[in-house]
Amino acid sequence: MATTKTGAPLDRGTLDTLLRRRLFYTPSFELYGGVSGLYDYGPPGCSLQANIVDAWRKHFVLEEDMLEVDCTMLTPHEVLKTSGHADKFADWMCKDPKSGEIFRADHIVEEILEARLKGDKEARGEKVVEEEDADKKKRKKKVKDIKAVKLDDKVIQEYEEILAKIDNYNGEELGKLIVDHKITSPTTGNPLGPPVSFNLMFQTSIGPSANLPGYLRPETAQGQFLTFNKLYEFNNLRMPFASASIGKSFRNEISPRSGLLRVREFLMAEIEHFVDPLDKKHARFSEVADKVSLKFLPRVVQESGKTTLIEKTIGEAVREGMVDNETLGYFLARIHLFLKELGVDQEKVRFRQHMPNEMAHYATDCWDAELFTSYGWIECVGCADRSAYDLTVHSNKTGEQLVVRETLEPPRVWEEWDVDVDKKWLGPKFRKDAKKVEEAIARISQEGREKLAAVQKAGGKVFVEVEGLGSVELEKVTIAKNKKSQNVREFTPNVIEPSFGIGRVFYSLIEHIYWSRPGDEARGVLSFPPKIAPTKILIVPLSSHTDFAPIVAALSAKIRRAGISNRVDNSSATIGKRYARNDELGTPFGVTVDFQSLKDGTITLRERDGMKQIRGTEDEVVEVVRGILDGDTTFDQALAKFGEFQGQELDE
Amino acid sequence: MATTKTGAPLDRGTLDTLLRRRLFYTPSFELYGGVSGLYDYGPPGCSLQANIVDAWRKHFVLEEDMLEVDCTMLTPHEVLKTSGHADKFADWMCKDPKSGEIFRADHIVEEILEARLKGDKEARGEKVVEEEDADKKKRKKKVKDIKAVKLDDKVIQEYEEILAKIDNYNGEELGKLIVDHKITSPTTGNPLGPPVSFNLMFQTSIGPSANLPGYLRPETAQGQFLTFNKLYEFNNLRMPFASASIGKSFRNEISPRSGLLRVREFLMAEIEHFVDPLDKKHARFSEVADKVSLKFLPRVVQESGKTTLIEKTIGEAVREGMVDNETLGYFLARIHLFLKELGVDQEKVRFRQHMPNEMAHYATDCWDAELFTSYGWIECVGCADRSAYDLTVHSNKTGEQLVVRETLEPPRVWEEWDVDVDKKWLGPKFRKDAKKVEEAIARISQEGREKLAAVQKAGGKVFVEVEGLGSVELEKVTIAKNKKSQNVREFTPNVIEPSFGIGRVFYSLIEHIYWSRPGDEARGVLSFPPKIAPTKILIVPLSSHTDFAPIVAALSAKIRRAGISNRVDNSSATIGKRYARNDELGTPFGVTVDFQSLKDGTITLRERDGMKQIRGTEDEVVEVVRGILDGDTTFDQALAKFGEFQGQELDE
Repeated sequence: MATTKTGAPLDRGTLDTLLRRRLFYTPSFELYGGVSGLYDYGPPGCSLQANIVDAWRKHFVLEEDMLEVDCTMLTPHEVLKTSGHADKFADWMCKDPKSGEIFRADHIVEEILEARLKGDKEARGEKVVEEEDADKKKRKKKVKDIKAVKLDDKVIQEYEEILAKIDNYNGEELGKLIVDHKITSPTTGNPLGPPVSFNLMFQTSIGPSANLPGYLRPETAQGQFLTFNKLYEFNNLRMPFASASIGKSFRNEISPRSGLLRVREFLMAEIEHFVDPLDKKHARFSEVADKVSLKFLPRVVQESGKTTLIEKTIGEAVREGMVDNETLGYFLARIHLFLKELGVDQEKVRFRQHMPNEMAHYATDCWDAELFTSYGWIECVGCADRSAYDLTVHSNKTGEQLVVRETLEPPRVWEEWDVDVDKKWLGPKFRKDAKKVEEAIARISQEGREKLAAVQKAGGKVFVEVEGLGSVELEKVTIAKNKKSQNVREFTPNVIEPSFGIGRVFYSLIEHIYWSRPGDEARGVLSFPPKIAPTKILIVPLSSHTDFAPIVAALSAKIRRAGISNRVDNSSATIGKRYARNDELGTPFGVTVDFQSLKDGTITLRERDGMKQIRGTEDEVVEVVRGILDGDTTFDQALAKFGEFQGQELDE
Repeated sequence: MATTKTGAPLDRGTLDTLLRRRLFYTPSFELYGGVSGLYDYGPPGCSLQANIVDAWRKHFVLEEDMLEVDCTMLTPHEVLKTSGHADKFADWMCKDPKSGEIFRADHIVEEILEARLKGDKEARGEKVVEEEDADKKKRKKKVKDIKAVKLDDKVIQEYEEILAKIDNYNGEELGKLIVDHKITSPTTGNPLGPPVSFNLMFQTSIGPSANLPGYLRPETAQGQFLTFNKLYEFNNLRMPFASASIGKSFRNEISPRSGLLRVREFLMAEIEHFVDPLDKKHARFSEVADKVSLKFLPRVVQESGKTTLIEKTIGEAVREGMVDNETLGYFLARIHLFLKELGVDQEKVRFRQHMPNEMAHYATDCWDAELFTSYGWIECVGCADRSAYDLTVHSNKTGEQLVVRETLEPPRVWEEWDVDVDKKWLGPKFRKDAKKVEEAIARISQEGREKLAAVQKAGGKVFVEVEGLGSVELEKVTIAKNKKSQNVREFTPNVIEPSFGIGRVFYSLIEHIYWSRPGDEARGVLSFPPKIAPTKILIVPLSSHTDFAPIVAALSAKIRRAGISNRVDNSSATIGKRYARNDELGTPFGVTVDFQSLKDGTITLRERDGMKQIRGTEDEVVEVVRGILDGDTTFDQALAKFGEFQGQELDE
């Protein structure tokens, strides 16, 4: 069951209301009735998103010297045809032929069978626990009328087996399930049409003529792959290296639900780390190997039908082979550290390996960082090994090489037998069959050549078997052992791809850091770490008296100049109400300007979570907050230094 | 003529090559033959763009406490139908019916007539100057075969008149020009079809059924307007306030050219400042009024056929009425300060007022900040007064009020004559005509009522004229002068909209800060201000000797921890070559690690533009750079403090 930061049961409805009231996000086009799967971010949401992106850019792009690119979302058809998306990026949908309503085929089967199982439990008089389906990633639409109908034990078993494999059926199989189990539209009861593949990309047309169809990209990755040669050159032809991209991607969901977790337009942050397929070591792996422990849910555990997590260091996981290689392991560890920095609850993170049948068409292995929320375990970061798939298909399609040429130092040196037949003899003698003879010679193994050399050395004649000509004597031939060397090795890099759904991280984080003041459930608090919080400081003049206006304006400007975002609340609400409002906004610090401030210039600084205060000059207070934001100090240290101030908050 | 930062003629070809070589930007999907009007930003371009956006956010959003929002790009048809874009956001296009080639109608007329005028000059033996058409905003495609044909003087005059008004013709008029002047396809010579309106929005379909058509937004503004009520409430119902949004918008150009200046997908930063239509004062106008001077090209000067700039303070401009109001003036000044901060050449900025016929359908006034480039004067920032247009049309369409309710303090108080007829008498007496009588009474003017009161007071009878009933006596009526008061005034806010084309600012800025080292034209330098530069410090070990590796890695990490982006170049190129490469990347500082560094830990710091160096400890050098980035010090001050270091750069 999902819980708040302080371990109480999480009421998603209350949290949702808070998030909309405080304009973290809001359904888009509400004035026009809304469009499902589209959301706008209001000021605090926008700022939180920007802070997450900023932390991501520092943690990954700057820290690892990645090459950031910004490619277009508009993508011509041909590119996504080659990548496989035009054919394979699809879900199955069923139509109610009479009402025209459209359902996602796997979802409707799942919902109906689950409803029937619940109805069976009711009929048997068992208690139906509205459990938070922890291991399903999609929220189930509640089929409204659950009928208390008892089912055969055999049917129950059959339903349960179908549900366990629901992600694995293709369209035909889903169609058969729908017919066999008499699944009809939950809204009208009408029979459903057969499942039809629906491509999830938004289609459009580029330019005035209709002959350049295109899509909105489903991922930022393709742009990065297509720029590979230029990036490799920009990186002075050094390997390995990573590109990175932050931008919107699109997915035309059949019927989106689950709020911010399944949307049609979303912000992604993706890394494509290009690596030698023969050497997936990582230079900085030693920095995390023994220091970072993760909770794993590997494929083998899932296959046994369990969800028991295995906790171990990433070093161990790679040594044992559970995680395939150092580069993949390094990124899993870095993802973990990033989520920790954001304030994600460490008890609510796991790394789950994909089952073979659930991987995207381009992936050979994939681990998801999943965060536990009221919607269950949510895939927030995917870390896939895309092997050489994308570079290879684009190279094959366009004829442009997308490869790395590695200079071998020292060059690879070896000895080899060469059989050189005299062309001036060969041509005139065999004419149109000359090529056949050459090919037969080329096919002689090293062993065979060594034997022929010995024959020749011993004064014997040298023969080769040629198809259609029989045994042919090579009258003019030189057989010698030569030294060979290779200076360059050419290969198509493999790609390790950590891919972040920023909106999902955003929402899951909020669930993790949300709690209520004890004794006042209605009073929600969002305990963002200061670095991530939308606004850092709320400035609260004790009274709306005009005497306060100049000092408040000057203080706000001073804090802003120090690079710290702040907002002034000079409304007439009580101090307590103003702080409560900012608890909901997750503002970590409050500064009160009171009558004493007018006299001696001191102000109080209040910390959101503990509600304790210190008092100091403006400069002292700014320094404390800057120190906390930079990670150089803590509020507790400031408390120790300045002493707790117990003063003016009369109305709280 | 466009010039470099140092005043030399700007060779756009050389600059373009530099920008592509250094991966500032690159045509998208080049591997697939490219798609015109789509560009990707490589690492330095991406970083430069991020720095411009960051500066923008600080300069506008944070400084002015604006409410930033992030709305979706996908927009349902109905919204953009209401806003007028579905009908009016279009250009005229002509098709070559045989080849299928499509031309923008106004562009093709312009190109052909200009080519003929050039041909005439050639025929007359005049020198044809390839002038950089400074006052045209679109680059002209060169019509290849200019024939030296002499034209009649009358024809020349006619052509010149057409060209002067080329932006004003509608489709029918363009069609007539094409026929009258025998304009044919420049590629095939075929006659062109009649101009057809082509909507510039990319169309798509949202969801699995085809009944929710949508577009990619042509501007970020609509999302902000639709969120108005929520933002107003978020702002504690205080006016004026501004929302802001940074995001991609789209424009399906008929045949895009001019590189980054006319693209199909672009980054915008838009502000919607909501203001009382009766009070467009701005609280902070006094901060800029006398301090900021702008160069104006007002409508009246353009109407007289001139382009003479008028320089004056924004205070004067508003006082004189040249700029309509303080809010518009304040934003023009703030835009100017922002461009200055980015490093835009102050001699290459002007503020041009739109002519009535060139304004967008929603605007009542508009000033563009134009930057001079090799493409002429380019509109980079528009500052439009959209009046109450958008809020009004959305409100009318949806029935939702989008208004401000202003509490009047003190309330508005006045006296008014009321005529109250007794309903118990009126109803039974007039039955179905009662309403007519009431309406007739309501129409009596204040003057008329006063007269009736006097009649009644004098004991006379009171009559009212009712259509169809003639003169009706009001037998039971009270006529009295009453005190009235109004506590709330309701109005639809006006919108002042500063709208930034980030890509255009990006490109124009680069032209302004580009120059070549004297005596070495091939050696380009991009003199970004340090705050804006893609990377701040290049770290150059003097030799690729492994002794340098640990100190270089540690130094890089230390600089990064100080929040300063840096890159290491440990390639085997000479120091001089490595610095030349980074001149092209616009990296403002170079740090050299040499053999002395290994001994005493000192390093040198080199400034890009002057190529002078100082030497100090790592901490001293980091402190100097941080001080320059924060605006607390300059490199010259550091030179004065540390003294110029003349040392190890043997190979430069």
